[in-house]
Amino acid sequence: MKGQPRRSRRSFIIGAGQAGAAAGLGRLLPGAGAQAPAIKGKEKLIVRSLRPEDLETPVGLLNSWITPNDLFYVRHHMYAPRVEAAGWTVRIDGEVERELRLTLDELRQLPKASVAVTLECAGNGRAYFDPPVAGIQWEKGAVGTARFAGARLGDLLRRAGLKAAGKYVALDGADKPVGKMPDFVRNVPLEKAMHADTLLAYEMNGEPIPALHGFPLRAIVPGWEGAYSVKWLEHVRVIDREFDGFFVKTAYRYPTKRIAPGASVDPKDMAPLTGLVVKSFINSPLQGAAVKAGAARVTGFAWAGEGHVAKVEVSLDGGSSWVPARLGKERERYAWQSFAHEFKVAEPGSYLLMSRATDDRGRVQPVAPMWNPSGYLWNAIDQVRINVEA
Amino acid sequence: MKGQPRRSRRSFIIGAGQAGAAAGLGRLLPGAGAQAPAIKGKEKLIVRSLRPEDLETPVGLLNSWITPNDLFYVRHHMYAPRVEAAGWTVRIDGEVERELRLTLDELRQLPKASVAVTLECAGNGRAYFDPPVAGIQWEKGAVGTARFAGARLGDLLRRAGLKAAGKYVALDGADKPVGKMPDFVRNVPLEKAMHADTLLAYEMNGEPIPALHGFPLRAIVPGWEGAYSVKWLEHVRVIDREFDGFFVKTAYRYPTKRIAPGASVDPKDMAPLTGLVVKSFINSPLQGAAVKAGAARVTGFAWAGEGHVAKVEVSLDGGSSWVPARLGKERERYAWQSFAHEFKVAEPGSYLLMSRATDDRGRVQPVAPMWNPSGYLWNAIDQVRINVEA
Repeated sequence: MKGQPRRSRRSFIIGAGQAGAAAGLGRLLPGAGAQAPAIKGKEKLIVRSLRPEDLETPVGLLNSWITPNDLFYVRHHMYAPRVEAAGWTVRIDGEVERELRLTLDELRQLPKASVAVTLECAGNGRAYFDPPVAGIQWEKGAVGTARFAGARLGDLLRRAGLKAAGKYVALDGADKPVGKMPDFVRNVPLEKAMHADTLLAYEMNGEPIPALHGFPLRAIVPGWEGAYSVKWLEHVRVIDREFDGFFVKTAYRYPTKRIAPGASVDPKDMAPLTGLVVKSFINSPLQGAAVKAGAARVTGFAWAGEGHVAKVEVSLDGGSSWVPARLGKERERYAWQSFAHEFKVAEPGSYLLMSRATDDRGRVQPVAPMWNPSGYLWNAIDQVRINVEA
Repeated sequence: MKGQPRRSRRSFIIGAGQAGAAAGLGRLLPGAGAQAPAIKGKEKLIVRSLRPEDLETPVGLLNSWITPNDLFYVRHHMYAPRVEAAGWTVRIDGEVERELRLTLDELRQLPKASVAVTLECAGNGRAYFDPPVAGIQWEKGAVGTARFAGARLGDLLRRAGLKAAGKYVALDGADKPVGKMPDFVRNVPLEKAMHADTLLAYEMNGEPIPALHGFPLRAIVPGWEGAYSVKWLEHVRVIDREFDGFFVKTAYRYPTKRIAPGASVDPKDMAPLTGLVVKSFINSPLQGAAVKAGAARVTGFAWAGEGHVAKVEVSLDGGSSWVPARLGKERERYAWQSFAHEFKVAEPGSYLLMSRATDDRGRVQPVAPMWNPSGYLWNAIDQVRINVEA
């Protein structure tokens, strides 16, 4: 974004084993990110792209209400920058009375808010669209829930003094394009930016945010598709119109009309994605699991973006009959809820389990979500095939 | 079947334009089947196989409660024989006190019963199974409803005098194998054979049964998959155990256990198909239809074999939300019921309509029917994509 602060030092986090090959892209500073926790156990994640590093969480590891930082899915468009806390600031400017520039210590002096959020990549489930759609081929695990803590974006904007012309808040991180790629900048309508739950977070699950997840500061825009929650945040700019950049005007857009699979869409019939849609998935048993005949249990999580999950139903017969699952309590407004259903299967065989969530506005996971050119918002009824053994 | 009567004359009905090529298969007797109505307008049907002739009805022509004879789907395994009424008899033997042999005129002297029946090929919808399954690749139209009239099979069996040993009734038609193919013989358990609605029919929709549909006599086994309704019937044999032939012991069997897609099944885990399953399809609008924005109407038929349709629901949003359709009355126990739903679509675009029937035992069309090696009983929620235009 124009007017971005100069950074004197720039390095990248490179996929394991790729450091040598990619050394030309930036200066590697071992130890320089000491304050930025590294992810441990990345080998447990599914590599969807190595450079930049896009990692999916196997659904079998999405088995706790809070997803551990080390297992949280990773998605970004540029190379992940290794930002040092020393010397780092976030700048707030644009349609404000006073430009602000705060260090991490200054942010920590502000009232601290915390919110548990289910973050989901807009492209989660893209691999299931037919015809296939280009992009990272996420299956089910580009989603996770973490508790983020930091300053309220609204507090900062009020402190800077909003001018009447301000309509959007553009968010830009320290990840910078390589070559001809456009800069990754997103923007949030002022109302959502001012919401008390929209944070500039410096903690993820009680720790400094790991380097791959946005150290030292990440925007958290709860209930909206994950790409709004900009990592490595260093520049917040209040603007008077929608930001004119690739990741606002071209990417992360969804048809405003119902389209046929494979159809091209006139750009004027596309609008930015905002909230996540109602969705659930089964985390146990796993696809292809062998399960002993007798009593068994199906569990999973359901969420609905800014909405609330009203119910989750489970089918054990390929979506013919449905029974309500027990829905865990809504612990936090923007975080998924667990569900569970005990069932008995006497007869060995191959069973197709399904889960289907409904939100408080009556929206239900569909049989067939609308195909769209970028493969966003896949939220079909979830399916898991299991083998019941004698 | 052993003990079958000798037929002195034998000819076949050959697909249009193929007569010359197939003349070696049998003696063509133009005009010999004068009493057997020919199908008119066969060109309206979809040719799934030319020899033998397997013809599917386009769903757009399945728009009346009674399917006209000329539009009724055609399925048989052998070449269709051209049977002459003169000299033809049906024989009843096996575990009976008295062997019977009746001419068509003698059959017409018996009390006449009539039943409207939805006949459906067990393989209807086979084309939709994944992984693909060998066999005629029926889509939606291997189904139709006709009123059949004739003698009750039970009346004839009582007249012949059932012996205590009789457990099944084997049905054999004049279609005989070519080369090494097994004979097409099906069998019906005695209870179903004795049911007052199980007929030996000589009329289809008020006319002699057309040649391709079984002239002069066809067994009608209501509510069961279509292959039980044996065409060109000439031999009814009461037997003391299940018939030991390919089309009973190998074909038309369905797994007794839930199996995974593509799995092989131990023959001991297969049992004969019997009743049709709950199903519906949309006959208007058609797949790919252009529909004016505003008021529109979705219509179709639903059936449930020996069961009753309890409700049909329609979705206009890809199976997320469902609304009940108006269900036409059940005119006859084994015949499909129409359904209709008026809806308004203001916004142009591509819409995925769906229909989903539920029977009186609570069985519902599934999202994903169980794959099986022969591709039988496809009854997934029906889908039709339409284009709403301004």
